[in-house]
Amino acid sequence: MTTGQKRVLSGMQPSGLLHLGNWLGALENWNALQEQYECFFFVADWHALSSNYADTSRIREYVRELLIDWLAAGIDPKRATVFVQSQVPDHAILHLLFSMIIPVSWLERNPTYKEKQEEIKERDLSTYGFLGYPVLQAADILLYKPDFVPVGKDQLPHLELTRELARRFNSLYRPVFPDPQEHLTKFAKVLGTDGRKMSKSYGNAINLSDQEPVVRQKIKTMITDPARVRRHDPGNPDVCPVYDFHKIFSPLPVIEQINQDCRKAAIGCIDCKKLVADRVVERLAPMWEARATLTQHPSRLDEIAEDGRRRATAVSSQTMAEVRDAMKI
Amino acid sequence: MTTGQKRVLSGMQPSGLLHLGNWLGALENWNALQEQYECFFFVADWHALSSNYADTSRIREYVRELLIDWLAAGIDPKRATVFVQSQVPDHAILHLLFSMIIPVSWLERNPTYKEKQEEIKERDLSTYGFLGYPVLQAADILLYKPDFVPVGKDQLPHLELTRELARRFNSLYRPVFPDPQEHLTKFAKVLGTDGRKMSKSYGNAINLSDQEPVVRQKIKTMITDPARVRRHDPGNPDVCPVYDFHKIFSPLPVIEQINQDCRKAAIGCIDCKKLVADRVVERLAPMWEARATLTQHPSRLDEIAEDGRRRATAVSSQTMAEVRDAMKI
Ligand code: SF4
Ligand code: SF4
Repeated sequence: MTTGQKRVLSGMQPSGLLHLGNWLGALENWNALQEQYECFFFVADWHALSSNYADTSRIREYVRELLIDWLAAGIDPKRATVFVQSQVPDHAILHLLFSMIIPVSWLERNPTYKEKQEEIKERDLSTYGFLGYPVLQAADILLYKPDFVPVGKDQLPHLELTRELARRFNSLYRPVFPDPQEHLTKFAKVLGTDGRKMSKSYGNAINLSDQEPVVRQKIKTMITDPARVRRHDPGNPDVCPVYDFHKIFSPLPVIEQINQDCRKAAIGCIDCKKLVADRVVERLAPMWEARATLTQHPSRLDEIAEDGRRRATAVSSQTMAEVRDAMKI
Repeated sequence: MTTGQKRVLSGMQPSGLLHLGNWLGALENWNALQEQYECFFFVADWHALSSNYADTSRIREYVRELLIDWLAAGIDPKRATVFVQSQVPDHAILHLLFSMIIPVSWLERNPTYKEKQEEIKERDLSTYGFLGYPVLQAADILLYKPDFVPVGKDQLPHLELTRELARRFNSLYRPVFPDPQEHLTKFAKVLGTDGRKMSKSYGNAINLSDQEPVVRQKIKTMITDPARVRRHDPGNPDVCPVYDFHKIFSPLPVIEQINQDCRKAAIGCIDCKKLVADRVVERLAPMWEARATLTQHPSRLDEIAEDGRRRATAVSSQTMAEVRDAMKI
């Protein structure tokens, strides 16, 4: 199984279509990682239950959509092992074993536990599984003994808890688990069409699966510098989300040109948006093609998931054999 | 899979050799149940971790000993399905799914949680898994959709929690689980050689696996009516644990005779003990034979566990298919 490469593990919850923010924040990073490392990317469908147990009606659909988004965005299932968490029972077994050795207090002091409960008031998140979210996460990670875990800064406490649990296991029984390091990712912050952070829940997102007319329409209605009311008013690109899009999607000379022209009212917002829409469409077009192919051959997705399940299980069952041996069970 | 018979599920933690108290309290009940019902009897080795995670060195040995004790005591693996919890991953999976829907408060108010923590001060039981003990227990039970669960009075709150969880699942998703009824068992209270309740931790137990000389020696040194100091003192059988043994093991005329003779000092304690020791040995002798056969053919035990695993999994996987379908995952 070993390739000599360092190993990376990462997952995403299936919670609907991915947008430009997810793509540039995480998927582009995964694309880079799979070039250098042995990658395991999994759909965290059991995790999705911890905050959405009361409405699971779309989970299956979301799992498929997420896989399609990944593959369309360039995740290569020949290089990376792409799998669905719930298809590998070892995640549930290691979660159960870890639950026996983790003090409740470690979970209660987890900063995101109370934060999330505050944040998501409309659902009842005072469940045992929600409290134990980091236990399942630790199992997800440690099963694959990764060298690195790509995390944003906000997830560092979770990774630290995973490491503490690994150390506790190693000292109670025998060293089995590594000390996975964080691979801090600078997320390009992508603004939505209304100028706030792009987010599905704000309704300001451009999805990877949006068709060309939808993408163009969404960009057309984006807010711009609010002080630029008329065509001949000079604008300030620094406060304009359209300009942020240029900075992400346009080549440097164009970005500089826009910066100058906007300030002199030498370009109108309609044209400026048209320019960036062309660029966005250019980047998304290959994804639309890949998506169309996958949608036409639904069994291809099952084959990829099945192949990923097999490869993931080959590693996880090896780890579980060591775990059972160390615990003498 | 259905036989038309009502189904019963019960388990025991592997925590060392069974004694006369376990036998008469639980195993004799199982022996009776397997005559009438479709029985699932499992070794709860994952449960054993919840209070013994720090020292797991003997769990494998305990699992084998427990199976031997069961079979020697008459559990018939052709009739009952005898299996080991950790060999059926569905227990861990359903535990994980249940964890997502059970409020922490249900577990915190569970009376045995705090009691046990008080009781067992020498081990740190403030773990997530110890708190979640009833979640695993609910999964163990509901996976097999039993009609009855044999319980002692002290375990009624746990079964009630299992039922509440079943109802919560059924109402969140779709009716999948039955409402298993308690099968209250009157446990014959067996005293140990020191007159206290027979218990491994008191060191006053006669084990099913004790050889004949050991059994005779233990009975010989049992305490009797403490007021009967000399042979010619009359005794009071009502306060004598040896007499309690007679009530369990001797035929009615003998019990009555002893009652009279003891009060008149017509029988000495040495003879009285010898009489009951003969009876105990008579009852245990077939177990010793069965045990010897099993010990000489260790692969037989593996075959029985494997056969049980197969039969248990046939039922549990059916339930899990319904669970996944109901939850749409
Ligand atoms: S010209 Fe472009 S950068 Fe300037 S305000 Fe309009 S949309 Fe924004
Ligand atoms: S004679 Fe028997 S019942 Fe009476 S005190 Fe002695 S041991 Fe107990």
